[in-house]
Parts: sequence; C-alpha cells; structure tokens
Amino acid sequence: MFEFEIQSRDGRARTARFQTPHGSVQTPMFMPVGTQGSVKGLSAEELTGIGSQMILGNTYHLMLRPGAEMVAAHGGLPGFTAYPGPFLTDSGGFQVMSLGHMRSISEEGVVFKSHLDGSLVSLTPERSIEVQGLLGADVIMAFDECPPFPAEPPYIRSSLERTVRWLERSLKAQSQGERGRDDQALFAIVQGGIHPELRQQSLGATLPFGTPGFAIGGLAVGESKDQMFPAVAYTAARLPESKPRYLMGVGHPEDLVAGIALGVDMFDCVYPTRTGRFGYALTDDGRLNLNSAPPRQQLIPIDPDCDCYACVHHTRAYLAHLTKAEEMLSPRLLSLHNLRYLHRLVERSRAAIEGGTFTEWASVWGERYFKGRLPDWFARALSGDETPALVHSAPIKAEAN
Amino acid sequence: MFEFEIQSRDGRARTARFQTPHGSVQTPMFMPVGTQGSVKGLSAEELTGIGSQMILGNTYHLMLRPGAEMVAAHGGLPGFTAYPGPFLTDSGGFQVMSLGHMRSISEEGVVFKSHLDGSLVSLTPERSIEVQGLLGADVIMAFDECPPFPAEPPYIRSSLERTVRWLERSLKAQSQGERGRDDQALFAIVQGGIHPELRQQSLGATLPFGTPGFAIGGLAVGESKDQMFPAVAYTAARLPESKPRYLMGVGHPEDLVAGIALGVDMFDCVYPTRTGRFGYALTDDGRLNLNSAPPRQQLIPIDPDCDCYACVHHTRAYLAHLTKAEEMLSPRLLSLHNLRYLHRLVERSRAAIEGGTFTEWASVWGERYFKGRLPDWFARALSGDETPALVHSAPIKAEAN
Repeated sequence: MFEFEIQSRDGRARTARFQTPHGSVQTPMFMPVGTQGSVKGLSAEELTGIGSQMILGNTYHLMLRPGAEMVAAHGGLPGFTAYPGPFLTDSGGFQVMSLGHMRSISEEGVVFKSHLDGSLVSLTPERSIEVQGLLGADVIMAFDECPPFPAEPPYIRSSLERTVRWLERSLKAQSQGERGRDDQALFAIVQGGIHPELRQQSLGATLPFGTPGFAIGGLAVGESKDQMFPAVAYTAARLPESKPRYLMGVGHPEDLVAGIALGVDMFDCVYPTRTGRFGYALTDDGRLNLNSAPPRQQLIPIDPDCDCYACVHHTRAYLAHLTKAEEMLSPRLLSLHNLRYLHRLVERSRAAIEGGTFTEWASVWGERYFKGRLPDWFARALSGDETPALVHSAPIKAEAN
Repeated sequence: MFEFEIQSRDGRARTARFQTPHGSVQTPMFMPVGTQGSVKGLSAEELTGIGSQMILGNTYHLMLRPGAEMVAAHGGLPGFTAYPGPFLTDSGGFQVMSLGHMRSISEEGVVFKSHLDGSLVSLTPERSIEVQGLLGADVIMAFDECPPFPAEPPYIRSSLERTVRWLERSLKAQSQGERGRDDQALFAIVQGGIHPELRQQSLGATLPFGTPGFAIGGLAVGESKDQMFPAVAYTAARLPESKPRYLMGVGHPEDLVAGIALGVDMFDCVYPTRTGRFGYALTDDGRLNLNSAPPRQQLIPIDPDCDCYACVHHTRAYLAHLTKAEEMLSPRLLSLHNLRYLHRLVERSRAAIEGGTFTEWASVWGERYFKGRLPDWFARALSGDETPALVHSAPIKAEAN
C-alpha cells in the first residue's frame, strides 16, 4: 500500500511517488499544519486547489479537543475536516514537551497537564498509537522524546535510547491494534540532536526496524541553521534510499530548498500560515511585510508569477489595507498565498531535479532570495557537506566519547 | 441605466429586476456589508458563489483608510475588492453619528474625530458625494442626518428638514461632479423616526426630487420591532411603486420577511457576519448557538436544506469544535452560511411572491421560526398594519401636533 517509487535523482535530491490509502502524492512535498483539525483560516477545498497533498494533524491537540473518538465518529480526519486526501499525525510527544505542559517523563511515558482544563493526562506509546488509529491518518509517527536545545549529550543519548524502546512499543501496539500496517504507515524518528555520533547511534538502533518511512527529529528546536543542516546532511545520507525521509517541523523557504538538496522528501511547518497571520508574504525576493508603508501604495500583486487567488485578484495595496485594518481576510489570503508559495517552490524543485539542474536552479533561487550572497550553511547544504559547525564540534566530541 | 422593472406582485410584496452599470439584480435582495472593502472573512469569489448581488461599502471607513483616492486608483470598489458586481455606498453620515465620533453638526455638515488618528475631518453633502464618486458604487446615498433613538419630535423634525436641504445639495454636487446620474444612482433617504406625522412630512418634501430610489432611514437604531414595523409599513406604502425601496441597516431573518411583506426591495445589515463571528448560525428554527453543548455531539449539518459550503461539507460537531477552539475557519464558515441563509430566504420569498403565496409562505416560515407563535408585530407586518405601537402613540401625537 505504501509504495515509494523514486522517479528521478539529481545529486542527493530526488523525486518520488508515495502511495497512501487516500491517494498518491509527489515528493518532495510540504505539508500544511492543521493543528486542531483546520489549517488556520483555510477551507479543505482551498487546500486542494493550491496543491496541498498531505495535511498534518496534531495528536496532542485533537486528543484533548474534540477527542479522538469524535474524530473517529466522522470516519477520521478526512471526514472530520472534509479534506479528502492523506493526513499525517505526529505522536503528541513533541507537543507535550515543547508546549511546556509536561509534568513527568518516565520509561512508561509522559504525564502532562491539559492546557484546556488543567487535568492530568497520560500519553504512552500505546495510547499515542491508539489515538492515531482513531484519528485515521495515513502516516502516523512513533512516540518519541525530542530533547530541548541545548541539551547535554548524555541526556540526548539516554533519550534516544528510550525513543528506540518506545518505537518498539509503538510498532507492537500497532500490530495488536485494530488498524494494521497496511492501513497506516508508522514512521520511526531518528534523534541525536546536532551530534554525528549520536545521530549514528540512533540510526544504528532505528533502521533495523524497517519502518515504511523515517523522520529526522530533534531539529528546528532552537539551534542555528549552521548547526542544523550538517545534522540533516549526515542523517539523510544514512537513511535508506528506498524509503521516504521526513524532516519534522521545517520550514522556511530556504530550509526546503536546502533540505531537498540533502535528499529530504517531506516537510511540515506552521511558518507559512503563522507569518501570514502576522502580515508577511513569502516571495522569491524574501518576505514582504504588508504592515510596512511601501506595499500600501503598490498596485501590483504580491508575486506576479504566483497563481494563488490573492495574487490573481488583489493588489499589494488592497492586501496591505486589509492587514492594517485587521480584516480577517488578510490572514486568510496571506496564509493561502504563503502555502501556495511553498507548494510552488517544491514543484519548481521537482522540475529542476527531473531536469537534472537542481543545484543550478537552487543557486539561482538562493542568489535572488538572499539578495546576492548565499549564506555559508545554504551553500554547504547544496554541496552535501556534513561537517558539523565548528563552534560546537569540540565540546560534542569531548562529551560524546 | 437604472431601470427598475417590477416582475410580480403579491399584496404589498413585489419582485423586480434592477439594472445597474455592474449588472442586473433581482429584488427583494439582501446586501452583505463590506465595511472596510471586505465582507469580514469572505472572498469576492465566495460572495458571488452564495448569490450575493450587491455589496455595501462604508464611506466613513473607506475615506479614512485607505482613502477614497486609493480605491479610485483601483477603478473603484469592484477593482479594489475584486467583487465584479454592483456596490452601494452609504453617505458616511450615519457612521459618523452612530460611532460617536461626531464633534459638531451644523447646516454646512459634520466635523468628526477620526477613530484612527484622532484628526478632525469634515463631511458635507458635497464631500460625501465626491467620495462616493471616487469609491465608484452603482448606488450612492444622499448625505443625511439620522437622529438617535429616542429623540424628541421637534429635533427629528428640524433634522429631517435639514436632511432635505442636504439632499438638494447632494443632487447638485452629483450634477456638477465628474460622474453623472447615468453612472451612479443617488437614493434619497426618508426620515421621521417612528412618527407617522414626521414620516409624512419627510415623504412630502423628499418624493418631489424623483431620485431613482428611496431609502427608509432612521430605523433599527434602538426602537422595538413593535415600533419599527408600523413606521416601515407607513413609509413603504407611500413611496413610489416604480422605484426601489431600501430599508437601511435591517436586518434579522424575521425583519426581512416582514419588510418584504411591506413592499421593501433592499436590505443590508452586519448581523449575519457579526453573529457568525460570535458562533451563531441562522436557520429556519432560529439561531443555533455553536458555543452550546448539544451541537458538539451532532453529526448533522447546520441545515440539511442549505447548499452552502459549510452545510455541504461539515457537521455541527466539526463547526462547534472550530468555534470552541477559536479557529478562524469558524467565523469564516458561519458568516458564509449566515449570508447564504439570508440570500436563500429572499430567494424563497421571491418564489412565493411569484407564486402568489407569499403571506401563506411567510406565516408557515414564521410559525417554525418563532416556534409556534407569531409575534404581534410580525403578524401585523404580514397584514400591512400601519398603526403605531400604542405605547408611543400618545406622546408622539402630543408633541408632533
């Protein structure tokens, strides 16, 4: 069911077709985040219209409200949200930890305080898989621990070892649950922070499980891009060629281009909708601030090359007016545009990979986006450099040995 | 250009075709309010899709931000908002007065304090018509004074007399302006509060101007429906049969049915979008509160007879979840549904008028909507009763004679 068929390669970058029960998707792809069963401000029809292929749902939020059973009563997330395509749900672990509601963490799982009513709720690998079964996504994630940044290597090591034991329990729970492995693809998550040694340890313990896909976790949690991308490079290069690779919680336009260069297939991030709600529009020339004065006088679209509803129908002046006037249509239209921008960006990446011109295309895109000067981390990602950022390589080695 | 062709009659109710430069509309009709160049949360495409025929823009808001000249630079409201159909703009007077920003009122006009930056701005009949020319609506309104409720009859009388003088100046400004009468239809506004004598005085002074349409102003400002509808009945019955009649700032579903019974052709109100933002959905059974507990468990649409996107795709449980979770999609979808509900309500009214069954249809609709018992004011409106509500008839007569 979850066939992953590579269609073209260019350096480490690749395009593929990923088959799921709710349809086939083309990778690389960016997944909009529908935290609470809604990509903020957008209808399911619009998501389909702008080329969204898979939507991310958050287990933590949905299990608390409206409750996984209510989503299941609608036939899962597609019925609940009216988005007919595939979904991916996270395991809930990251949200519990990052939102600061965690009360205790043990080998059994985590206990957290609901941000809605303050009640204590427990989440274990078994419960996470059960909830994800009820939510009914096509791709589900193993329950893992994502250490904060910075964390000491010994902590990261014991955490990733526990993540492996939780992966084993997640897979066992899936086998014993009502939904089988043909119905939901359970992806394992490789941890290890920004440390090659720890990434290697996590890879060595995780890959043997042979899950239908692998995620690169534990990044985009506060480290710099100089620190993050060598870890992506190192990890992605050691994941199986034949399985989809998902870089969790990433990212910005430049992160997608760099990640694709390093062989990543799937991305998700709240960034395009969140920055849209703050009045920013993504373009090849960087981020356009619609709260600033110049757009208010500009009778041109955000991006003349964009085919989204906002760019086809509206001027910057109109959108800047809506933003200034705090009209709800502004966050809606800017979120729509920003998602379409990222979808177009991966579409353009796929075309360049298919044409064997990805690195050249990415360099030209980067020259314009970064206004003439590629940042070091971006240039290194395009070349596949795995060398950890110098600033952290010394202490990491001292502690990790 | 502004031909108004009556197509069918049933009692006082009628259907008509009203031709404007931006297209022909069918009356009775309800106009969504796009105060700041946007019907809150909705795209132009959606408005067309749910059967909106004419959109209202607010001169007061748009002249302050983004400025009428900026709207004109887009070719007027259709270019600015991307809604291709006809618009109607108010004169700005009501907003200045009702929003409490007015600083002084004189024969010349009003001076008010901008709610945006506190600066003093003047609005006169001449300036209102100039601004409305720049905004480019198909129907524009004479600059009038709308007294608060309650107001003493002597004040209402002197105010309506000034409104007539301002109408004369509005028409003169239009004749001398860049846009002619073929381009924008200027409607006069009949004032007089809830007092038949004052309504008669206003009618007598206003009708001779022979404007292409007439509005019933000064209502829905705080009086009860018992007080409002006899005034609508009295005024509508004395407006020319051959011109469109516009009841300003109304209304609720029951107000539309009652107004149509009394021969009103056009309505506008922020109610459907505002109540949608508060989590309420309009139905034939009254207002459904999506913040309440029952809808959270209901796997049925808001209204199984409704063809709006929300009713076709979503359950009450999903919409109640979005409302509870304060997701932006909730106000958007409820606003869409509520506008579609009102558009369908006038569509059903038109069909009943054409079929000669309007009073029966309205009674059956009212029995369900009011849960078995028609309010006195509603039953009286269906019968065309113009008798002022007793509670106020004595003091009115005493003062007005």
